[in-house]
Amino acid sequence: MKIHKERIDLESKSQIEFMDMTDQIQEVVDRSGVREGQALIYVPHTTMGIAINHNEPMLLQDFMRVLYKIVPVDAQYSHDLFELRRTSGTADGRSNGHSHCKAILLGNSEVVPVEKGKLLLTERQSIFAVEFDGSRKRDIVVQVTGL
Amino acid sequence: MKIHKERIDLESKSQIEFMDMTDQIQEVVDRSGVREGQALIYVPHTTMGIAINHNEPMLLQDFMRVLYKIVPVDAQYSHDLFELRRTSGTADGRSNGHSHCKAILLGNSEVVPVEKGKLLLTERQSIFAVEFDGSRKRDIVVQVTGL
Amino acid sequence: MKIHKERIDLESKSQIEFMDMTDQIQEVVDRSGVREGQALIYVPHTTMGIAINHNEPMLLQDFMRVLYKIVPVDAQYSHDLFELRRTSGTADGRSNGHSHCKAILLGNSEVVPVEKGKLLLTERQSIFAVEFDGSRKRDIVVQVTGL
Repeated sequence: MKIHKERIDLESKSQIEFMDMTDQIQEVVDRSGVREGQALIYVPHTTMGIAINHNEPMLLQDFMRVLYKIVPVDAQYSHDLFELRRTSGTADGRSNGHSHCKAILLGNSEVVPVEKGKLLLTERQSIFAVEFDGSRKRDIVVQVTGL
Repeated sequence: MKIHKERIDLESKSQIEFMDMTDQIQEVVDRSGVREGQALIYVPHTTMGIAINHNEPMLLQDFMRVLYKIVPVDAQYSHDLFELRRTSGTADGRSNGHSHCKAILLGNSEVVPVEKGKLLLTERQSIFAVEFDGSRKRDIVVQVTGL
Repeated sequence: MKIHKERIDLESKSQIEFMDMTDQIQEVVDRSGVREGQALIYVPHTTMGIAINHNEPMLLQDFMRVLYKIVPVDAQYSHDLFELRRTSGTADGRSNGHSHCKAILLGNSEVVPVEKGKLLLTERQSIFAVEFDGSRKRDIVVQVTGL
């Protein structure tokens, strides 16, 4: 039984962004040597999430719009007051209450089976790290287990 | 350590549908021979999701209503224009932007512990494959790992 | 390869409540003896969910507000009629259609890597059992696998 874990560094360029990590995650599976098993994709952050879907830019915009309707950026978030007090109003604080709420809705982990050394992705599935409070340097964790 | 993976074929009958897969997933656990471990339930599609909850038809309708309020079918989705262009307006394309958005909200994987050879489900928990763009032939993947 | 599973008993004090289980989950990891692997956190209930985020009370209120906007308590849920009939209007029934809907949105499982015997949590990540139909006695399941 193999357990192989790697961090993948990434850098978001805008406040909210779908970053397609599929190829890099497959490379971790390749390096793991696992042929049959599974890959855990995990986000060690509080304002990012994981999504698996079609990498079609117009669709990703549609989903952004859904999320922004549920969690508007221009609503009042108590957390933003907390951050403002914590940082005494300095530039360090971020008005990112909405980013946390979006991240909770997406969740921090997804598990994808590995079959004959390949991520079991069909049709047009891509695996995305979803930034909700960029731009920033970030990382995600991929852990591959199996035989 | 055992790793046992099967696809379960299914066929949705309507556009949006909760399909209770609990018994068939338990049968995969039975065939795996795993007594202590876990079952990964994974959807290899971009317009289906996984949910675990009570199989009570009025409740499932309630949840549909919640999803339709968040992601209305009669809103405009840019992805539908993409599909229209891709297929040159032929019958092949689907106006399924809303289906993708709903699927992302539910997620593609859930992991359920296996205890003494049984899925650890209590109360009235059922495991559903949730169709958002039927009717279609589909499949889900169940991977059982453990001792 | 170790597989170690424990139930953690808890008791919610209000109808909707974020319960920070991080320390107790780490104690299960400690008892498992696993140094490299992963922890599955699983909710065996239909009106509770799992979330991983910052334990900042004002942020948790923000997220509650988002959920209540999506799934209002004062809307009509067909499931509440089902419960009323099932219990013949006795005190046993709960108007908890909204609780089920919220639970489905959060999901029942999250998987967190374990590194050098510690849950891989960075920044301000806490793991919450999220009650949507309290107060009640509850439990969650933690299953640690690895070397």
